[in-house]
This record gives sequence, structure tokens and C-alpha cells, in this order.
Amino acid sequence: MKDKLTGIYYGGDYNPEQRSESVWQEDMRLMKKAGVNFVSLGIFSWALLEPQEGVYVFDWLDKIIDLLYENKIYVNLSTATAAQPAWMTCKYDDILPVNKDGLKLSYASRQSYCPNSPSYKKGAARLVRTIASRYKDHPALRMWHINNEFGCHTAECYCDNCAQTFREWLKARYLTLDKLNAAWGTKFWSQYYYSWDEICIPKTSTAFINPSMTLDYRRFMSDSLINLYLEEKKIVNEITPAIPVTTNLMNGFKPIDYFTLAQDMDIVALDSYPDPSDSKTYHNTPLQFDLMRGLKNGRPFILMEQAVSHVNWRPVNAVKKPNEMRLMSYQAMAHGADGIMFFQWRQSQRGAEKFHSAMVSHNGDENARGFKEVCQLGNELSLLSELKGTYSNNKAALLFDYDNWWALDGECQPSSLTTYMLLIEKYYSTLFHLNIGVDIVPINSDLSMYDIVVAPSLYMTKPGTKELLESFVHHGGTFVCSFFSGIVDENDGAVYGAYPGLLTNLLGIYVEELNPLNRDEKYRLSYDESHYSCTLWSEKVHLRGASCIGHYESDFLNDSPALTVNSFGCGKAYYISTLPEDSLLEKVLSQIAVEKDISPALSVPKGVEIACRYSDSKQYIFLLNHSLEDQFVQLPASMTYFDMIKQQTVSQGITLASKAIKILR
Amino acid sequence: MKDKLTGIYYGGDYNPEQRSESVWQEDMRLMKKAGVNFVSLGIFSWALLEPQEGVYVFDWLDKIIDLLYENKIYVNLSTATAAQPAWMTCKYDDILPVNKDGLKLSYASRQSYCPNSPSYKKGAARLVRTIASRYKDHPALRMWHINNEFGCHTAECYCDNCAQTFREWLKARYLTLDKLNAAWGTKFWSQYYYSWDEICIPKTSTAFINPSMTLDYRRFMSDSLINLYLEEKKIVNEITPAIPVTTNLMNGFKPIDYFTLAQDMDIVALDSYPDPSDSKTYHNTPLQFDLMRGLKNGRPFILMEQAVSHVNWRPVNAVKKPNEMRLMSYQAMAHGADGIMFFQWRQSQRGAEKFHSAMVSHNGDENARGFKEVCQLGNELSLLSELKGTYSNNKAALLFDYDNWWALDGECQPSSLTTYMLLIEKYYSTLFHLNIGVDIVPINSDLSMYDIVVAPSLYMTKPGTKELLESFVHHGGTFVCSFFSGIVDENDGAVYGAYPGLLTNLLGIYVEELNPLNRDEKYRLSYDESHYSCTLWSEKVHLRGASCIGHYESDFLNDSPALTVNSFGCGKAYYISTLPEDSLLEKVLSQIAVEKDISPALSVPKGVEIACRYSDSKQYIFLLNHSLEDQFVQLPASMTYFDMIKQQTVSQGITLASKAIKILR
Amino acid sequence: MKDKLTGIYYGGDYNPEQRSESVWQEDMRLMKKAGVNFVSLGIFSWALLEPQEGVYVFDWLDKIIDLLYENKIYVNLSTATAAQPAWMTCKYDDILPVNKDGLKLSYASRQSYCPNSPSYKKGAARLVRTIASRYKDHPALRMWHINNEFGCHTAECYCDNCAQTFREWLKARYLTLDKLNAAWGTKFWSQYYYSWDEICIPKTSTAFINPSMTLDYRRFMSDSLINLYLEEKKIVNEITPAIPVTTNLMNGFKPIDYFTLAQDMDIVALDSYPDPSDSKTYHNTPLQFDLMRGLKNGRPFILMEQAVSHVNWRPVNAVKKPNEMRLMSYQAMAHGADGIMFFQWRQSQRGAEKFHSAMVSHNGDENARGFKEVCQLGNELSLLSELKGTYSNNKAALLFDYDNWWALDGECQPSSLTTYMLLIEKYYSTLFHLNIGVDIVPINSDLSMYDIVVAPSLYMTKPGTKELLESFVHHGGTFVCSFFSGIVDENDGAVYGAYPGLLTNLLGIYVEELNPLNRDEKYRLSYDESHYSCTLWSEKVHLRGASCIGHYESDFLNDSPALTVNSFGCGKAYYISTLPEDSLLEKVLSQIAVEKDISPALSVPKGVEIACRYSDSKQYIFLLNHSLEDQFVQLPASMTYFDMIKQQTVSQGITLASKAIKILR
Repeated sequence: MKDKLTGIYYGGDYNPEQRSESVWQEDMRLMKKAGVNFVSLGIFSWALLEPQEGVYVFDWLDKIIDLLYENKIYVNLSTATAAQPAWMTCKYDDILPVNKDGLKLSYASRQSYCPNSPSYKKGAARLVRTIASRYKDHPALRMWHINNEFGCHTAECYCDNCAQTFREWLKARYLTLDKLNAAWGTKFWSQYYYSWDEICIPKTSTAFINPSMTLDYRRFMSDSLINLYLEEKKIVNEITPAIPVTTNLMNGFKPIDYFTLAQDMDIVALDSYPDPSDSKTYHNTPLQFDLMRGLKNGRPFILMEQAVSHVNWRPVNAVKKPNEMRLMSYQAMAHGADGIMFFQWRQSQRGAEKFHSAMVSHNGDENARGFKEVCQLGNELSLLSELKGTYSNNKAALLFDYDNWWALDGECQPSSLTTYMLLIEKYYSTLFHLNIGVDIVPINSDLSMYDIVVAPSLYMTKPGTKELLESFVHHGGTFVCSFFSGIVDENDGAVYGAYPGLLTNLLGIYVEELNPLNRDEKYRLSYDESHYSCTLWSEKVHLRGASCIGHYESDFLNDSPALTVNSFGCGKAYYISTLPEDSLLEKVLSQIAVEKDISPALSVPKGVEIACRYSDSKQYIFLLNHSLEDQFVQLPASMTYFDMIKQQTVSQGITLASKAIKILR
Repeated sequence: MKDKLTGIYYGGDYNPEQRSESVWQEDMRLMKKAGVNFVSLGIFSWALLEPQEGVYVFDWLDKIIDLLYENKIYVNLSTATAAQPAWMTCKYDDILPVNKDGLKLSYASRQSYCPNSPSYKKGAARLVRTIASRYKDHPALRMWHINNEFGCHTAECYCDNCAQTFREWLKARYLTLDKLNAAWGTKFWSQYYYSWDEICIPKTSTAFINPSMTLDYRRFMSDSLINLYLEEKKIVNEITPAIPVTTNLMNGFKPIDYFTLAQDMDIVALDSYPDPSDSKTYHNTPLQFDLMRGLKNGRPFILMEQAVSHVNWRPVNAVKKPNEMRLMSYQAMAHGADGIMFFQWRQSQRGAEKFHSAMVSHNGDENARGFKEVCQLGNELSLLSELKGTYSNNKAALLFDYDNWWALDGECQPSSLTTYMLLIEKYYSTLFHLNIGVDIVPINSDLSMYDIVVAPSLYMTKPGTKELLESFVHHGGTFVCSFFSGIVDENDGAVYGAYPGLLTNLLGIYVEELNPLNRDEKYRLSYDESHYSCTLWSEKVHLRGASCIGHYESDFLNDSPALTVNSFGCGKAYYISTLPEDSLLEKVLSQIAVEKDISPALSVPKGVEIACRYSDSKQYIFLLNHSLEDQFVQLPASMTYFDMIKQQTVSQGITLASKAIKILR
Repeated sequence: MKDKLTGIYYGGDYNPEQRSESVWQEDMRLMKKAGVNFVSLGIFSWALLEPQEGVYVFDWLDKIIDLLYENKIYVNLSTATAAQPAWMTCKYDDILPVNKDGLKLSYASRQSYCPNSPSYKKGAARLVRTIASRYKDHPALRMWHINNEFGCHTAECYCDNCAQTFREWLKARYLTLDKLNAAWGTKFWSQYYYSWDEICIPKTSTAFINPSMTLDYRRFMSDSLINLYLEEKKIVNEITPAIPVTTNLMNGFKPIDYFTLAQDMDIVALDSYPDPSDSKTYHNTPLQFDLMRGLKNGRPFILMEQAVSHVNWRPVNAVKKPNEMRLMSYQAMAHGADGIMFFQWRQSQRGAEKFHSAMVSHNGDENARGFKEVCQLGNELSLLSELKGTYSNNKAALLFDYDNWWALDGECQPSSLTTYMLLIEKYYSTLFHLNIGVDIVPINSDLSMYDIVVAPSLYMTKPGTKELLESFVHHGGTFVCSFFSGIVDENDGAVYGAYPGLLTNLLGIYVEELNPLNRDEKYRLSYDESHYSCTLWSEKVHLRGASCIGHYESDFLNDSPALTVNSFGCGKAYYISTLPEDSLLEKVLSQIAVEKDISPALSVPKGVEIACRYSDSKQYIFLLNHSLEDQFVQLPASMTYFDMIKQQTVSQGITLASKAIKILR
């Protein structure tokens, strides 16, 4: 793949068609001032590009691409398929999506298409082929931006065509009705199917839908959305085999299995819009960055969209205060971003996003805080080209699995308070606060390079999971697993026999009872001679080889094991049967880290994050002060570092102002 | 009716078709170990029994019934009509129900049929006839279980067929449009009907629907559901006239007038799933038991379904802690249960209820707490056969009326905070805490055996109510009535003239104004030289013969009567115009009980419930310790009792551990 | 226009058709006792008046009008079009309205018609013509009451006919698609229209609808509803040119631009149902009265409907306590009412409003509190005829604009906590507590008679607004404007360049950033050497000619201007960039009032409202004690007043009991 951009990608979505050409020259001037080298073009331009079926108009796009190239700004060219034109919606009956209640949704917003609509797909393919053919040789073209935020707004459809496509998908999966009936347990509630045509989609029904059907429908919809990507990618690959292809993802977006999608992406791109006023943002956002890096086995990604300041779709849209956008940008880079981009270059004057911040505001003021911060960042990034392509080197991994997410969060579970992301975030943030770098890895990953693997609520054990984890621990790894694990197979069918099912040998326990706790209910437990509280869940655990390292002190679980550890081969497997209070979870994970000799590159005060990237020969240390106070970081007496932004050496120690950052080499 | 089972029914729903035959022998062994003598079979088996229209397959059912019989376990055979097969849903357009918003609901769950669907009814009748004919002479067959939880999930339908059937129901009720127009007050809001065909059903409209129409629609839907029962019952009665017939009810389920339905049930059966973590469970659940007993004029019922531990459909599904299931089972028996059964025998591996507890858990562990408690209870019950058929002998009754419930809880009332069940539960729990046994009786009941009759918010006075109550009090009874009574006629039309309308003579008051209180608003009142608070409601009451025994001390009602008593014939009629704080309501009802010389069989400490059953010659005293502490119950010095479970005599006193029970004879 | 009623209008809705004729004579007796001189007849009588298409029955209406006239009670005759008969709904497919989700709503309630339904409109026109022709010469007829509460329950419809009508409305507004595409900014999100037929209505879509489309749809629906009024008015004007025409409005009802509607009303009529238990009622209700007066440039209005006590449609329906109805009635009069009327004369026995209070209750009791208060008020009003037609004479105005309301409250704004009515009520109530009389005026009003003009959040500046306000200030006026002003044009397109856009010159500021605050978030600010808190919103304001009179003391806005004032011509323009705590807003507005020499007619204690009406020669002072305590009002030493209700002179001072009022001349 060619990528002549040697530096960090910097720029944003650029929608020049919303403004008159007279503004374009001013745009070029300001882009250069800000250090922009890359823009995403044409994302919502379908209606302008194809005014009537099969008739294409490219004059404005030709002009702007030429103009950008003249100004040494390269193009991430969209296939423009994110929102079909109104004329197409009106012409074809099969395009508008249908919701769970059977309502055919209307348009006049965006992305109003059924993911399985033949008419939409046909129109999209024709458009993609036309655009790719026209610009295939343009020297500004450096990347393909397929569609936009797949699944956003329309992640599922319940139209008749989807129902039929679902049945075909099921036939391919199960081959026979007998297998489907067995996998779904349709002898329950008189749901047995004698013909494929009897199978419906999980529309609003009178009671709880069969959860195995619901799970398969989620898989089917994920596949349907991925298929849209693949169909476009195939066309651009055919015409421009050397141009890398991406699409912009939306954090760990639940409706699409991004591990599957990312296999066919040349580079991962992320849209990240955390709420600046949410106190959890600084530790939940890097989880998403780490996930993006994990999608392609550690390869860097592009932060394709973020806001300079506020968005417009929250109930209250908080601004990013001075230096916060810069801090959040460098946090992305610390976790693997090779590009920092924004939605969007100029704030829209009209439409639903006119109050979304942009690199250039309504006021067009070069001295406005937003634009000044954009310029500062752009100019700093130009000093950091050598970071491009560097990698992380973490010893801890967090297992993340979409099937598990979908199944665990289903209806009719023991507790609706227990959601997969809650647990993932809890374990991640604990490791984050310990400054232990983490890779987010899929369930079928090679774990051999890790010392610690954490799996919060591994409810579903798919074929191979047992073997993978046992092998990891057998060879010396430490496995940490939380409650409600090993419960179901890949079709959400409960294990025959004792919980935790296929994890029983590895964990050395038998879980007799699940005892979810009510909101605000607390149990007590004892660990290491201290007493702690725990919430959300508890279990009646029996030892079957493991040792008890913490026990409950509440209710009928009094004196029974709460935390256990099992020696297995050369390694250990921990089980945490409840959600401990933060200090205890931090203590347990910290002790495990010490056991495995994992520690941050530098010792830093509370409130300061430290993260590293590596080239083959160098270590780059990011220091990020998320706190509201100045913080002092002591450097090792013998060491001298190079401050890459100030371009000077530092030693002894560094004082970081609130929201400030340092990159040391 | 034959019923060869001389002991207490014990067992549960048994769905062997969900597991391979290899498990069935193990099932028999465990059932015998647990003391199971009765199982419900086939409830959701329609899809398996009738794989295509008119083709029936019974081999597995034949086998399992034989196997059960060999093991001396008797069968409560379901008519299997609770959920039609998918092929039938697909084949007939009229089956799926339509909700208030016109949405035809989908299937893939359960009980997805319109209660007036001709196709469903035809298919159900054919199935029932086939099953009944096949098993009519099988010696294991002891009871018919019609359908399942009628109205659960689909208690109302708004399809065109229901609209047409509603119009026919109205014609039968009113005979002429003039009468309907008068009863519904259609001169209001231009709603006058000139043709039956103009009458719609109360679908979502632009504003508040005519409340008389809504009330009649509720009656019609209740009748529609009852009619489903009657159609099945007629068939099994014809084929097996000697087999008793039941269907499982769901507490005081609002959509069906169970007093009407129960007239055609040979024995009442109840499904009871209170939340074990709800602190009101221990006094709200026996209200439902008493209602079940009241449905057939005091005859015992079967607790047909309860959970061994947790259910799966709450936001958080709390377990029953050690001894709680036993305590709750004996509470049912104390209030009239002749059988204790569970949903279900084995926990399902798949489907929407796989996390619902069962007699045998996923782990299949005989030593798991759940199964051990099941065995303990089963073996205890075998000692209690003589309790079967014993009755209660209460002197207090609580009037309960479905029409009143439906009308009082309608839209556009003075206060939506005032709901019928809130008041019912408040008065019931007060009597419960006083350990005064209560019968729940319908509005047209013979009251002559009672000393006290309580009617919370008798909003609607139907023809005969006035005469019934006046006669009761005239002959010496004490009547207790709360606010918002005597307001409307049987069509929800307000009385002409002063409130409380037809109850004016009996109560000796005139209620000039209704003054509902806001949430959290409190008034003060004075009673018996003490001061109390009250909430929810207040009224401007004038004395018209009654005496004031408590007066308001708040706002513009200051000094006006809050509680009154009227002498009427040989009896008294109390009126309580607000919701007094608990201690006051307890004081008032306690004083009335003392006046009427009603007291519990033994004096017990707070937290211990005492309830009695009687044979013609014996009294059986149930002592149930609902508290978290040990409790000591003093026995009369001169008396010796027989502890029926320990099978030994006791005298002087008994210490009951927390959650423990005693049955004394 | 003829109006032989020289006194204050007093009476209510009269629906004699709901009761038998035998009650009518009693009605007459009680009406005379209560001082009733005016009733509204026939509002929901269509079904009775037209039993089948084109066949009319008027006998009962003839009789009752004659009877009223004999008793000297005049008639506000309804056109009876508020709810079409069921037969018509069944006969014509186009009548029932469709909601945003595509659901065709049902009937059996009221006002279930699409505002653009041809069948409804045709039937309504025929009915109006028939009624007007029949009663055109009846001497009792004094006013036409067109329809009822236009838009209540059905303020918008999404049927196909409305979609087509909307497109025609758009063609008339924009003439060309180019102009529409430009105004709506359809190059955003690929929404460009190439044919009028492609334009949909803002039904539920996949994401946020284009806000300019939504705004135009609101305008279109407002016009559709106004058009219904105009079509009926045209008919009655043609037949009875001398009879004044009204329709009853519902406060500042958001769906209809009442400033436009009122242009074609001969007299404004208001239905007012504030919650008596809401502590904001006493200062939010007069805002609505002032708006009613402002609709026709200060002309008096009729309070056409209010409740004697409680309504029936709130979750809890609080009563009006003793003297509250009287107090609220005189408050209406103090703010411009020339009539005090009720819904309704007699409480309905049946239907959705049977628990709505009335002049005569279910009990029919002449001695009930409600009826006694009705009589007292009616007899007092007969002493106040000279007040009819008197006017207010306020020096302060509050700008109120429906387009601004619709646009500001749209989706995707910076903060959903910031709503137009919140700000309007905040500024109004502050002036109310200062006892500064306020006129509510439209955005295109002549402002020359005012000293102070207040515009809370003047988000949208329409053509002419800039010139109007600049001219007002230039000539010496004081303009007060709050945050988020000057942001968009009349199509909700953001200004090009700096905020506050067209108000920049007048206010002398540049707003660089909008910084909405989260719920419960507080900033500090300093004003006049004191410190205050503020909430909801803040801005980064730069001075461009204005002076800073208060600055922020929080966060990144520390030290930047919060409140500014700009000298402009002979006047001043204040800008308040946040929502100050009450005491500060009161302080600022109070200082401005002092500057402009505005003060109440008398100095009154807190809790007492003072308001004035004027004839050409006299001043009428209303004193209203809204507090729960007695209050003493000092009168100027030299003055003697005439107490118009007691009909005696007063001087020195007056003690007002809680909820009491005085009218002094």
C-alpha cells in the first residue's frame, strides 16, 4: 500500500460543498497555518454527485481535490455512500429501514437505509465504481474512506427482505433445521420450526424472544453491515489496488463485531466523542483506543474524528476546556494513534450539526481559542513524525468478545445490572490507574506474549476458548476471571453440569449458586486480613483444587470463598466471584502485577498517566496530567531524556501543569 | 370428581421433551427421592404434538406418562394450548394479537394469540379433543391443566376481529343503542352512536377515551379469555367427566375477573412468584393466597407454580435464601393450599427461562442447596396428609371486586396515586399484622358468617351492593369503608346527588368535596386524643347521622370529620376518609376487632404470623417466623399441642428460629 | 360589532343536552342566583345536531336558547365543530390524524381530526353555515365561539394529505427548489431535493431531522390550524357581520402562532387551568394573561374557561382552596380580563371529565363551597362594570416570538436544558416580583411607548428585528437581552461571522464561545462588588464597545465579562450572558427600572401583587395577597381611595387577609 504521508495525519472532514467557492482559498490558507496535511472529502455528497440515477456531476469535487493537492494536502476520499439521495429513497421501496415495531422509518436525516436493501447496494456499488474510476490516478488520493460510521442510526432492520436474508444466513450456518432447533432449544415454549419459512426475526412480540434467535440475529446484522463494507472495498481494491482502505469505527460499537470487520481494513480509523464533562472520560476513552489498536493485532490507527470542543447531540454539550483537546489527542497517540483528525474543518451553517464545534468556527476567527489550539497541535505534530508506526509492548491483555457481549447483555439474565461493558471498564480502569499498559485482544488471540490475561465475565465459552486459556496458564501465564463465567456455549445454551463449565478445570472451583445483588446492596468480604465491600453479584463457590484467598462475610455466603486462585501447570488462575470495591480490585491486580514483575516505565504521581510506544530501537514515554493540579514526575537520577515537543533534553524531574503532557524519548 | 391422591400435591412442571430420554430414568429416581407425587405435563408441547395441521405425534408423551405411572407419580395433563406452533401462526392471518397502537405483535416468544382468533380456537379445540381422547383412560391422569396462565403477555387485543366481537358483546349487554348511549354518556364530547358499526375499541386516540367504553372493553376481554377456558373445559368434561379441571391463575390478575372464571374451575390453582428481596412480600403474598381461597368460597387451592429460588424476568432476580422457600410454602398451606408445586422440575438449558431456578439445577447436583430443600419439604409434606381439605374459619372479610378495580384505576380520576390494590394491600396488611384472619370475598357474597367486613374505596356500587351491606350491618355486623366510595354506578356514571351515593344511609355522612393530596403531602388528624399524619387523600365530610371519631387538623379541612362511625340497625358503619399512617389504621382496626371479640388463636410476638386451618374436629395452628431473629411463642399453660412435622408433643413454649415454622395440632 | 352586555361577562360552558329538560328550569334559577349573564353553548354538540350527513336537528338547542334569553342570559354560540360525529369518522378515510410514528389515531375521545382533512373541513363548513343561518337573528346570540381549543390533542398530523399540503405550502413560501435547498442547507447529509415530490414531512427517522424542515413544518401546521379558524370565521362573518367572533386559546400554546391567529379574532378568549398546588402558579399565570392582552395590542380579553376548583387530567388534581378561585379570577381581571367564565356550568355525570369541577357539582348543593364562591364572585362582578374596556399602561415590554420558540427548542442545540419558556418565565417572574407591569409583545411590535424592552434568548433575528431594536435604543430605550441571542436567521441558519450576529452593533460585544452548564453545575460571578452564582449557561464574551458590569469568577471564564452594557444612541443595551441567581437578576432589573423611573403605583409588601387598569380618566388599582399571611398595605397619607367591592372609601392603609383582594379606584 502506498502512503506518501510520512508524518502524523492531521486534518479533518472537509465539506467545501456547503460553502461557496470564494471561501475555498481562505480554507487553504488556514489549513496550512494549522498544519493540516490530510482531509476526508465527500462523505455526505451522494445527492450532489448523482443528481439523477446514473448521472454524475464531479466538477466541484475535481476542483477541490486539485486545489488541495496544489496546497500539499492529501485526500482521504469517501465513497460517499453514507446517505443515499432523496430521489433514490422515493424511487425504491426497499431502502428505508423498518424498526422492531414494524415502523418504516422516514428520511430527511441520514443513513436511512436497510443494510440488506438490494436497491441501496446496487446504487452504492455503481457510485463507488464511478468515483474510484474517476480519481484512481489523482496524486492527492491517499486513502479510501468507505461509507461512514457503519451502523450508526441504523444498526438493525426488521423488514421482510431482512427476514428472508436472515433465513438464508441461518441455512448457511446450520444447514439443517434439526441443528437449528437444537441450537435454539425450540422445544421450549412450543417454538419448534418445521420449515425455514416459519422462522421470523425478533420483532416486538408478546413476551421474551428466544435468546438464541436474538443472538443469531445480532450476528446476522453485524455480518450484513460488514458485507456492505466488503462490497465497496472489493470495488476500490479492483480499481486502485495500491490505495489503503478504511472506514471510521465508533469505539467498541456493539452492533458490529469490529474484530471481524477490521480483518479487511488496511488501517483502523476511529471516531471518538467522549463527554468532556464526564469524570470517567479520561480512563474510559483509552480503553477504546486500546481496542482500536487491538483490532489489528497492535497496529496503529487513525483518530479519524474527534471534536475540537463540544458536540451537539448530547442533552448538554460541554466544551473541551483549554488544553483538554490537546491532552485527549496525545492520549490517543500514546495509545497507538498515528493520526489526529477532526469532524470537521468548518462548522456547518445549517442542518442538524450546526452546533458541533469545528476547526474553524462560525465566527471564522483565527484568534478564537479553538483555532489557536488546532494550530498549536498541528505544529507540534510536525515534530513527531518518527512516532508514526511505533508500537506498544504490553504484558497484560484484556479479552474482549462481541458474542459474549451480545449474549451476556441479553434479556432474562440473572441481573440486568450486570452488563459486559461495566465489567470491562471496571477491570480496564483499575489497570489504567495502576499504569499497567493493556492490550485488548479477541477471544481467539495468540496470548503467548502476555504475562497476565484478564477476562471479566467470560459468560460464553466458544470452541477453543478452554484450550487457549488452559495452554496460556499451563505455560506460566496468570489468568484472572470474574464471576458469571463459563455459563453458556456459543448458542447461549447453558452448560450441562456444574458452573463454570469448561473453565472448571482451569479455575479449580464449582459455583453452586449465582446470587446477584440488588442495586445499592452491599456484601462484605475479607481479603489479606482486611475487610472490604462488594456489590452487583456474588456466588456460592466451592473449592475443587483452588485455594481461597478471600471469603464473604455476609448473609448465607458467610465464610464461603469470594476470591480464589488455582495453580495450573506453571501458571495461576484467579477467580473473583463478585465486584469488589475499587481499592480491593486495585490491590488484587496490583499484587498480581508485582508477582509478574510488571511496572510502569516511570513512577508517577496519582492523576498522571504514563504510556509508552516503541520503535525497534527507541522508547517513547508519554506523560499526561489528567488532574487539576500541577504534578511533579521524578526522573531516574542517571537518565537524560529528550523532550520531543520542546526539542530539548530533560533530566532529574518534570513539572507538568494541569492538562499538560510531555513526550520523552 | 375422582382424586386418588390422598396426600398433599407435590411436584412441578415437567418438560421431559427438552432433554433426551436417557435423563428420564434419573428424573424418576430424583423425583422419588424428593417425594414428588404429581407433575404437570405438556404445557408448551403443542408444536411437538402437532407437527403439521391435524397430524399428531404422541410417542414421547405416551412413554413418559407410562414411566411416571410406573413410578407412582400422577399427572396433571395440560391441554397444551398455551402457545400455538409457528406453522399455525404463519398459516392463519387472524392469530397474532394487535396492541393498542395497532401493532400486530410477532411470535418467537409465547402465548402470541388473539383471544378471539377463530383459527386459534379451532386448532385448540381439535388438539384438546385429541389429547383428551387419547389419555382419557390412562390411570396416571388425575387433573386437566387447561392452557397456561390465561392472559399472560396477551391480555388484550385490538384487532378488527376483536372490534367486531366487542360490538356483538355490547349488543348482548345493552340490546339497544339508546341504552348504550345513555350508559356511556355519549352526549359528552360528541360521541353519540347511531349504528353499532360506528363503535370502535379503545385504541390509542387523540385524547382520553370514554371511560365507560374502556370499562366495558375490559369486561369484554375478561369474558373473551374466560371463554377460551370454557371452550376447552367443555371438551374435556365431555370426554372425561370425572377428571377435575383447573388452570393456573396469577394472583389477583387484573385483566380477568377470577371470581367469574373460578365458578367453572373444579379446583383453583395459583402461580406465585413474589420477589424474595421485597420487604412487603411476606404480607402481600398471603393476600393472594386468601384471594385464591376466596374464589371458590373458602375451598383449598393448589400452589401450582412457585420458584425453588430465583426467577429470571426481574431486573435483578434475587434468590430465596436458606429456608425461605420452605417458609413461603408453608405460608401458602396456612392460607389454604392443598398442594405445593414448582416451575419446574429441571432447569431449562436454553430459551428465555434458562436462568429460572428449578427443583433440579443446571448442575444436576443432588447436594445443591435447592434440591436438598426440595427433598426436605417433600418428605415433610408426606406427614401432613390430614391437612388436605381443611378450611379456614375467619370472622373478617375484605370485599374485592374486579369492576371496582377496573373503574377506580381508570384515567381521569381525581388522583392517579389512588389505586385499588394500594388500598386493598394497606387494609389487608394491617389486619395481617394484627394476626386477624381474613377472607377475600366478592361483592355479591353471603356476608352472614362475618363479624367485620372491610371495603377499601368502594368507588362503584353495583345493583344489590347497598342492600347487601345494609342488611349485614342491620343484623349486627361492623362495616369499615374508606374514602372515594359510593361515587359511580356499574357503568362508571357518577351518582346524582351527594356522595357517597348509595352508601349515604349506611354511613350517615355527606362528602361535599374530594381533596386528593399530592405525593409527599401530609395532613394531620386527631383520634382518641392523639395526633397522626395521613396521606394520599382527604375529604370534606359532613355528619348526617354518624358520629365524628377523628378530625382533620390541617388546612381548610381543619376541625372537620376525618373518621366517622354510624350506628345502623344492630351494627356499625365506619368511614375513614383518608389514608391514615400505619399506626393509626392498626389502632382503629384493632379496636374494632376487640369490639367484635376477634383475636388470634395464640398470642405471638411481632414478626411471627399465626394462621389456622380446621377440620370438622381439629384446629391446625401454623406459626411462621418471618423475622430475622429467633422468636419465642408462649403456649397456654394448660395446653399440649402436637408438632406435626417433628411428630412430638409440645407445651409451655416454642422457640422459632428465623424463617422457621411450626404446625401444631 | 354589537355587544349589548355592558357588564363583565360571567358564566361558563353550558351543556344542557347532557341532562334531561327537567333540570333546565333549575339551571336557570341557579344561574340567576350566581349572577350568570353569558354561557357558551353547543361546543361538543355536532353528533346531536347532525345525526346523519346533511340532516340537522335543532329542537333542543332552539328551546334552550329561548329559555336562556327569557332569563336574560346571553349566548356565546359555538360552531360545534370541535369533534366530528362517529358516523363521519367511519364514513371518510381522510379524517383521523396520523402521528409521527405513522399511527392513525383512533376516536372515542375528542378532536380526532387531521387539520387538513378535506372531508372534515367540508362537513364543518356545512355545519357552521347551517347553525349561523338558523340563529343569525336570535336576540340571545352575542358572540361566535369557533370550534374549541384549536390544536388541543391534535396539533400535528403526518398523513399523506398533510405531506402533500406541506409541499404546496413550501412552494408558496420558497417558489423555487433552489431557494428551499439553500434555506434548509440540504447539501448537508446528502439531503438535496431535485423535485418537490421528494420532500417528506418530519416523521420519525433514523437520526435527527433537518431542523429547518422541522421549523417550517411547525409553521405549516400552525397555518393549517389557523386556516381552520379562518374558514369558519368567513362563513359566520358573511351571515352575521355584526356578531363578534372568538375562539378559546390555551395560554401561550406552542403549536399555534397566536399573534397571527389573533389578528382575525374580534376578542381574545383564554382557557386557563394552572395547577393550584404549584408554587409557581401565581407568577406564571399572569404571564399568560399578559400574553393574551398582548395578542391584540393591549385590548382586554375574556377568561373563557377556568375551573371552579380542580380539573381531572393531572396525575393529582388539587382543589382550589377557599378564596383561591376568587383571587385567581381577579388576577385575570387585573391583567386585562373583561370576563370571568368557567368550564363548566354543571359537572358531567359521565365521560372523561366527570371529575372536573364545575359551578354546580354532582351534589347539586347550593350550599357547597364551590357554588357559594361562584355566587359571591358573580355578585361582586356586577359592581365592576365600569372596568370593562379599561386598559393597562405599562412601560416595560417582553418580546415574545413563536418562531424563536420553535427554533430555540429544537433538537441538536447546545443544551436541551435551555428552553425558551424557561427564560421567558424567569425574566417575567422577576419583573412580576418587582411589581413592574409588563406587556408581552410580538417581535414586529411598535416599541415606542416603552422604556424597557426585555428579550430573553433572542436566538433568531428575523428581517427587521435588528432595525426595530436599534431604533428603540437609539431613541433612548433600554434593551435587555440574555445569552444565546443573535445566532440564527429566520430559517435557523447560523450567522456568518461573530455571535451575536445582527445584534453585535447594538450590544457592543463579541461572543467567542457558548459554554452551556450541566444540570446542577454552578458558576460564580461578581457584580457590584458582591458575588453570586449562575447556572444553565455561560459564554466567553469580548467587549466591542460595551462596558463590563459583572464578570465570571469560575473556570476558564474567570475574569471575562458576564454582564455588559452598551451605550447606543440615547439608550442602553444590556447583555446577560448566563442565568443569574434570582437575587441578582432582580437586582439588575430593579436598577434598570430605577434608571428609567418605573415603579409600582403603591409600595406593597412581599407577597402582595399590585396591578393597574386605566380608563381615560381613572386608575384602578388591584391589590392581591398571594401569601399565606395577612398583609398591610400603606396608602399615601394624602390619598383617599374607593374600595369598589365594599363600595366604601378607604385611606391610610388596608389589611389584606391571605388570598384576599382589593380593587381601589
